Amino acid sequence: MAESSTARVIRLRPVDDVAIAAVDVAAGTGVDAGGGVVVARDDVPRGHKIALRALRAGAPVLRYGQVIGFAGRDIAEGEHVHLHNLEYREFRRDYEFGVDARITEVLAEADRDTFAGYVRSDGRVGTRNYLGVLTTVNCSATAAKQIAARLRHSGVLDEFENVDGVVALTHGTGCGMAPDGEGAAVLRRVMRGYLTHPNFAGFVVLGLGCEDNQIAALTRDVHMRPEVPVFTSTIQELGGTRKTVAAGVARLTEMLPIANAARRSRVPASALVLGTNCGGSDSYSGLTANPALGNAVDRLVRQGGTGIVGETPEIYGTEHMLVRRAVSERVGRKLLERIDWWREYTAKNGGSMDNNPSPGNKAGGLTTILEKSLGAVAKGGTTALTDVVEYAEPVTTPGFVFMDTPGYDPVSVTGIVAGGATVVCFTTGRGSAFGCAPVPSIKIATNTPLYQHMTDDMDINAGGIVDGDTTVEQVGERIYRRVLAVASGEPTRSESLDYGEEEFVPWHLGTVM
Amino acid sequence: MAESSTARVIRLRPVDDVAIAAVDVAAGTGVDAGGGVVVARDDVPRGHKIALRALRAGAPVLRYGQVIGFAGRDIAEGEHVHLHNLEYREFRRDYEFGVDARITEVLAEADRDTFAGYVRSDGRVGTRNYLGVLTTVNCSATAAKQIAARLRHSGVLDEFENVDGVVALTHGTGCGMAPDGEGAAVLRRVMRGYLTHPNFAGFVVLGLGCEDNQIAALTRDVHMRPEVPVFTSTIQELGGTRKTVAAGVARLTEMLPIANAARRSRVPASALVLGTNCGGSDSYSGLTANPALGNAVDRLVRQGGTGIVGETPEIYGTEHMLVRRAVSERVGRKLLERIDWWREYTAKNGGSMDNNPSPGNKAGGLTTILEKSLGAVAKGGTTALTDVVEYAEPVTTPGFVFMDTPGYDPVSVTGIVAGGATVVCFTTGRGSAFGCAPVPSIKIATNTPLYQHMTDDMDINAGGIVDGDTTVEQVGERIYRRVLAVASGEPTRSESLDYGEEEFVPWHLGTVM
Ligand SMILES: [Ca+2]
Ligand SMILES: [Ca+2]
Ligand SMILES: [Ca+2]
Ligand SMILES: [Ca+2]
Ligand SMILES: [Ca+2]
Repeated sequence: MAESSTARVIRLRPVDDVAIAAVDVAAGTGVDAGGGVVVARDDVPRGHKIALRALRAGAPVLRYGQVIGFAGRDIAEGEHVHLHNLEYREFRRDYEFGVDARITEVLAEADRDTFAGYVRSDGRVGTRNYLGVLTTVNCSATAAKQIAARLRHSGVLDEFENVDGVVALTHGTGCGMAPDGEGAAVLRRVMRGYLTHPNFAGFVVLGLGCEDNQIAALTRDVHMRPEVPVFTSTIQELGGTRKTVAAGVARLTEMLPIANAARRSRVPASALVLGTNCGGSDSYSGLTANPALGNAVDRLVRQGGTGIVGETPEIYGTEHMLVRRAVSERVGRKLLERIDWWREYTAKNGGSMDNNPSPGNKAGGLTTILEKSLGAVAKGGTTALTDVVEYAEPVTTPGFVFMDTPGYDPVSVTGIVAGGATVVCFTTGRGSAFGCAPVPSIKIATNTPLYQHMTDDMDINAGGIVDGDTTVEQVGERIYRRVLAVASGEPTRSESLDYGEEEFVPWHLGTVM
Repeated sequence: MAESSTARVIRLRPVDDVAIAAVDVAAGTGVDAGGGVVVARDDVPRGHKIALRALRAGAPVLRYGQVIGFAGRDIAEGEHVHLHNLEYREFRRDYEFGVDARITEVLAEADRDTFAGYVRSDGRVGTRNYLGVLTTVNCSATAAKQIAARLRHSGVLDEFENVDGVVALTHGTGCGMAPDGEGAAVLRRVMRGYLTHPNFAGFVVLGLGCEDNQIAALTRDVHMRPEVPVFTSTIQELGGTRKTVAAGVARLTEMLPIANAARRSRVPASALVLGTNCGGSDSYSGLTANPALGNAVDRLVRQGGTGIVGETPEIYGTEHMLVRRAVSERVGRKLLERIDWWREYTAKNGGSMDNNPSPGNKAGGLTTILEKSLGAVAKGGTTALTDVVEYAEPVTTPGFVFMDTPGYDPVSVTGIVAGGATVVCFTTGRGSAFGCAPVPSIKIATNTPLYQHMTDDMDINAGGIVDGDTTVEQVGERIYRRVLAVASGEPTRSESLDYGEEEFVPWHLGTVM
């Protein structure tokens, strides 16, 4: 994409009705998307859409070769296309299960790339080696934080070089809930996912004592690795805060030599479970970082590894495309069931599936949920959809897997990590600062100005794709290589900045009593 | 209540069908509740109920002179009465507005007790003097916590003796929500309540930048005191985490001398706004700590002060009693409207108004929501109900005020503090360790064994009432005096133990997208 005398715009497919401004385009400037010069009638901010042709009120408007909405009124050639003239509307689609399922030929084990991970007794492979303080209820959050902080500040962790640290996972719920409701079930599923996660080598599980989310109900039926030490207790049992903090610190200190005995060893990339997310998306997300991440997921799937896409409200409207990629009708139907669940959930609780683009998304140039969804789904690459799981359910099928999660970053990634992700790749256009201890999160900027502005927080710049410096494939390769390096111990920006504890946010469902 | 050769039990009213075991009562032991000896047929644990007479299946069962449920089957004299033979059932009641409203004669200002508070320019009086770091969204939680921690560890706070500290208030929400929904409105109401709270002297308000809960929408229409310095910014604006933390620390450091200029001065007790809550209730809550706290509220109301009771699900079933105490039909109807709202909310989201007694409550001897509710409502004392407000709404009417909140402690108290409470009294039977920075929380044990077992966390023991050492009136007086002392600066246990930041939990309503 060389500079021209006209302002630079990007059109993804020849059929598209709109192009994306690569720079701020002033009214009166000519733009050329390959079909002749169009003169901008309005100022079109960078990342926003410009009409390449006149559109009648009610006409479908195409981007990525797909309908992103309908003209809300007549739109003239060269007009800025956004909230004022582009509308979302439901339209019928046919579901064709599996017609586009590209079954990937997985490399033979000898040919696979490798990384240095912690091989656990259940066969899963960790990328970090942490001790955890898990809480059943908000009432034990302060004690849990104090246990972790005291251990951290004591200096004792320095003596155990194979231990990455201690993580206190706290939350606002665990009581005042229906003990047999959906909210309690989801919270338990999340906690069980963390209790069995290969990035943990020992636990203190702390309750208050009288909460709805009882430790006994939580730890029942959880298949923990037998070598992982676990101390479960409550503040009421231990006789108050001081004694609880002292007991927690003492028990974790005893666990340190056990945890420290773990060693990294070379394992094939097939052992990797890569979670994905996007947060603070912009119009570039679907042009740069997301397709590049999708390319990295394709590479990992070829190695026999697993890539997880979540954020159901952010893929809403593209389910017909995903169903076509499903390995079976069963897998496709699971996705459609979750979509139906979401329609009911939003109808009952307020909000519509179309109100997802946040103020930031809109300022960045995304107008409708469809437009955003097509960009979001690009993170999943092009391989067959091998499974669909519910929020925080264990992911056990290799390949490209969909997990039903909200789009909201901390909630989505908490479910994906509970499901077993050991590395997360997080794309951001507006600039998210996110971590998800005990799992590293690689931050990928969708545009170069963001990468430069928030350079302390960004791991990879995908903005070169729109700058014309690099390609989706090259950035995809770079992401894939970084995933292997980070899985082997290379720290991410958000780990260096101590992110990850506050971002543990289990999905809150149901009544707060 | 002197010791007798039979096991000690407590009957609150002569009409009661059950008495409460003051000690573990073994089967075969005689108990005397004043109406002759009854022989226990079962082991009746301490705090649990024993039938004083035979009851037919379906008969109403009375405690506190009130119906707490119905016999689920025939109950013999001396049987343990609990979940296995006592059932909850809806029954009709007549609403008689205001018939029991006892309008309290308020003392003349010259005769009132005083405390040493921070008189603010809007006339409200603080009990502490904090700087706050408020967050619009979970994405700025880590940066906010780091700002507060860095300021705390720098030692700079030691130079400003009138500043109590810095509080980072973080939460799991603020995005992935319907921006005009009930959830967003509640979150904004909470944040506005904290922004105007008299216990704060300066703020950093921190967002990520692209969240649904935008700073501009939040701070619009909020009537902050003009002398309170506020720095609002976002991580995206400031260029990432490191720059944000540095900017936050710098701006708070500039605010320290301004905050430190505040001085305590003697003001009448009428300026106090006392919030109440109970958490980890047991069968003693309604016998000891709650009525004693109600007595303290009565004393404060006589001074012209304000006492707030919340926890709607925990007073459910007693609304007919509260309506009789309302100063007007309007106030009574507001309560009934909120009760109706709760019926819809629980029907829609799962859970029933009867599933409130938690496993801990039940283990402590409380069987039904009615029984628990009658004990919970005792915290409000006996004066007229002067107003009913919604969650986190400003409380501006003196006297006994009801705020509609969930029963779950952190969520309830967050709303009550947002409404303007400057001291909180928290009763607990099972043992809660709770704080609510920037407001002190006085912990009142309902029983002596708990007080002794968790002595580091408890401020006051109300257990002497059941031990026979003291009376409700004496403990009420002691609570009231402690409230004045704590309002004047005396630290509570939970402040010494650094509780209060993690327990900021705005009520989560609506869809997570
Ligand atoms: Ca280490
Ligand atoms: Ca997201
Ligand atoms: Ca937190
Ligand atoms: Ca100080
Ligand atoms: Ca409570």
